[in-house]
Amino acid sequence: MRAQKPIRSDIAWSTSDRIVVRGKDLPGEILGHMNLGDLAFLQITGRTATPEESNVFNAIVITLVEHGITPSAIVARMTYAGAPESLQAAVAAGLCGLGTVFVGSTEGATKMLYEALEDRGDADLQSIAVATVAKYHREGVVVPGLGHPVHRPIDPRTPRLFEIAADNGMANDYCKLMQLIATEAERVSGKSLTLNATGAVGAICCELGFPWKIVRGLGVMARAIGLVGHLLEESENPMAMEILWRVDEAASAHLRNA
Amino acid sequence: MRAQKPIRSDIAWSTSDRIVVRGKDLPGEILGHMNLGDLAFLQITGRTATPEESNVFNAIVITLVEHGITPSAIVARMTYAGAPESLQAAVAAGLCGLGTVFVGSTEGATKMLYEALEDRGDADLQSIAVATVAKYHREGVVVPGLGHPVHRPIDPRTPRLFEIAADNGMANDYCKLMQLIATEAERVSGKSLTLNATGAVGAICCELGFPWKIVRGLGVMARAIGLVGHLLEESENPMAMEILWRVDEAASAHLRNA
Amino acid sequence: MRAQKPIRSDIAWSTSDRIVVRGKDLPGEILGHMNLGDLAFLQITGRTATPEESNVFNAIVITLVEHGITPSAIVARMTYAGAPESLQAAVAAGLCGLGTVFVGSTEGATKMLYEALEDRGDADLQSIAVATVAKYHREGVVVPGLGHPVHRPIDPRTPRLFEIAADNGMANDYCKLMQLIATEAERVSGKSLTLNATGAVGAICCELGFPWKIVRGLGVMARAIGLVGHLLEESENPMAMEILWRVDEAASAHLRNA
Amino acid sequence: MRAQKPIRSDIAWSTSDRIVVRGKDLPGEILGHMNLGDLAFLQITGRTATPEESNVFNAIVITLVEHGITPSAIVARMTYAGAPESLQAAVAAGLCGLGTVFVGSTEGATKMLYEALEDRGDADLQSIAVATVAKYHREGVVVPGLGHPVHRPIDPRTPRLFEIAADNGMANDYCKLMQLIATEAERVSGKSLTLNATGAVGAICCELGFPWKIVRGLGVMARAIGLVGHLLEESENPMAMEILWRVDEAASAHLRNA
Repeated sequence: MRAQKPIRSDIAWSTSDRIVVRGKDLPGEILGHMNLGDLAFLQITGRTATPEESNVFNAIVITLVEHGITPSAIVARMTYAGAPESLQAAVAAGLCGLGTVFVGSTEGATKMLYEALEDRGDADLQSIAVATVAKYHREGVVVPGLGHPVHRPIDPRTPRLFEIAADNGMANDYCKLMQLIATEAERVSGKSLTLNATGAVGAICCELGFPWKIVRGLGVMARAIGLVGHLLEESENPMAMEILWRVDEAASAHLRNA
Repeated sequence: MRAQKPIRSDIAWSTSDRIVVRGKDLPGEILGHMNLGDLAFLQITGRTATPEESNVFNAIVITLVEHGITPSAIVARMTYAGAPESLQAAVAAGLCGLGTVFVGSTEGATKMLYEALEDRGDADLQSIAVATVAKYHREGVVVPGLGHPVHRPIDPRTPRLFEIAADNGMANDYCKLMQLIATEAERVSGKSLTLNATGAVGAICCELGFPWKIVRGLGVMARAIGLVGHLLEESENPMAMEILWRVDEAASAHLRNA
Repeated sequence: MRAQKPIRSDIAWSTSDRIVVRGKDLPGEILGHMNLGDLAFLQITGRTATPEESNVFNAIVITLVEHGITPSAIVARMTYAGAPESLQAAVAAGLCGLGTVFVGSTEGATKMLYEALEDRGDADLQSIAVATVAKYHREGVVVPGLGHPVHRPIDPRTPRLFEIAADNGMANDYCKLMQLIATEAERVSGKSLTLNATGAVGAICCELGFPWKIVRGLGVMARAIGLVGHLLEESENPMAMEILWRVDEAASAHLRNA
Repeated sequence: MRAQKPIRSDIAWSTSDRIVVRGKDLPGEILGHMNLGDLAFLQITGRTATPEESNVFNAIVITLVEHGITPSAIVARMTYAGAPESLQAAVAAGLCGLGTVFVGSTEGATKMLYEALEDRGDADLQSIAVATVAKYHREGVVVPGLGHPVHRPIDPRTPRLFEIAADNGMANDYCKLMQLIATEAERVSGKSLTLNATGAVGAICCELGFPWKIVRGLGVMARAIGLVGHLLEESENPMAMEILWRVDEAASAHLRNA
């Protein structure tokens, strides 16, 4: 007979007349007292954000909500066209692609920066940047947080995010190291490499002390908001079927006309 | 030859050095100036929330973020156990079940209330409530927004949400009608029926003028935040495999021991 | 204290050295003895298909596997572009849109036909067809299984599916009624209406006695196979990013150039 | 102005009266002539399976369809409880967790075996097995395809799959190497390590010459079939809500009673 292990969660609980989230009474202490960003911080960390943390956290999540026509927006819209009765499934489909290539790359930047500054001893940031870039090049892996197909040479979100971090006392070693890594990677590769928003968000997540495993989650919650906006527009002014016909016409012409 | 139709979105656009969301410069006018809830309102409606709208909107979305161990939390955790490298897929899986039974029932309440007050003429709210309940009973359909397996006789979120709506001048005919419908449904059925949080959220969405098609989306974006919190806890203190073994032992005992 | 209810499944069970599916030893009685379609029949119905059922079942599922560039194929490919490490999430995203508009419409046809022939008494099929079409028109609902944007006036899958059903003794009242309904709907609407593959599949599912709740599932399992093929092609000859750029250019031109 | 790149797919195409999949007329050459497993082989590889390939391919996909109560089955059932109108989303949710831990581990085995036998020169299989295990141990990575929580010391599917491969002339170097790796990993670790079904399937996928990128897809298509069976049972004899209450009671007791 297998011995049972405990099942336990410390996030929230409820009884017939109470709902308590992270130790706070939801109706009495949260509703009407917090904005959505601060509640998200509470949900993830288990504690109330300081005003500085609130400023920075709201900014990094908002950054990832919306970027016009993205793969996730197209996916959500095309899913909605087939199942308009299941809006939640359309959002879910749109989120499935937030992996290592888009949005999820925040995770890679956070992990890289944590590992670089762990056990740093007396090393200065510049030599750590050089060593980090060398390590990624040696392993043939792309340095996370760098490069952007549209925003070149500067991603307009990046300097603004670092400015907000600095205004709130959080532009410290992780942010500095991310910038030094970007410069060093440019030097080594001989190419212009944008320090993109996911790199800035990743660095700021380190400043906030977030576990790297959860950093991709900030982009996921943000994009869920963005996709709801796209689905409302799709319900009023659809593009999904027109995309379908254009792609189908292009993709199969060589077979149809053979 | 098929004539192409236009493909057009008015939500956001970007160039190499700019990102504009709903007509606002993202770095210059949004980051550092808005909280996440207000940005969500902007994303969905295309305009900036008034202070009253901000209070009410943040409250209704926050209400739907977290309710302890829910089907969506279990789903996200069990998905994460199999694919910890794909956190976004675990959130997506958790969202897929926000349909007509859980969370998505906000949509039904909004639709019911809009239809009930459309072309109302001179009818008073009480007679509209009676007619609405009679219609649902006649069609054998459950009145949305009523009943709760745990919160009985009162869902503690409901009076607080109506209070916040009232404090911000938004507890008008839709909120009143929802409450009258609840009372009438109790009278007709002879059973105690909780006016639950999805009923209150649905009514307030009418007050805010949101299209019913998008109301389920508020719960979806909210729960995405909640699920990220659950996945962080799962990564640190997992319960998924223990759930698996307990369910497997219970479900197959009659076959294994046959 | 809540009284626990039983948790029970009769599909399969395993011990350290055995795996039994639907009462059959998986290694000894299934592997090497069945093809995938017959195993799917066993999994759903709990019994082994007759040769006739096998012929018909394999045909209807295969019908739904592949139709070139579909919304689900585009969705899967664009998801894969963002998360190539999560192929399963790309397939899952592609399946999310198999709702009431595409593929899932098999379900509507099955339900319609079951309801039409339930308690039919002495009514002949033609008068049932007339009554069914009249009912859908009265309720303003589209008759399921009819119409196709490409296959006009005949969906080439439909006559072949009915032929296979007939060859195996399963082109009985449900198949006949579906065809009569198509003719009647054309007469009433005055428009040419293709009896499409989902209508034929839906009718044949009635002949097989499948519960209508599960009929959408045949399209889901079929399309999962199709999407794996699309993802392999996408990994070798990608189109997702090119779709993204074309859509983005078209959708935002009016804003970028304003 | 961006230069457009071609969008092209070679899988299937259709016109008003034709549907062609992998060069074959769907109604005329596929329906009624192929079983679902062989169609899946055609969809993925672009060619018709030989009888031997058909035997082996059907067996490996069937192996992954069903294993009783799995995380994916629980996920699909709990999703269905919240959104019974969206069966496709319930299957999709269940598939999202087929990652590196469950089912998707076939991919790891295939990749390991391909890399091990690439450029092997004159090396014999035993020394390649020793080198492979040493490499995984050095990198602190688990050898894929080994270990099982229930099937110990032997996974009953494994010898049967190798037997079917041998009967069809496909138990060659990849299958032999997988078995040698299992023995070597046991020797090095000093623990009993089951060569599990995903290891056997992974090796056979190498024998079939499948690209490692698509191997996870076989498990995904297989499990989609399995989950449809679970959802039909859930619709008739549900367990989802009972799981919810049991987990909720266990997880929150320490907070509720504090």
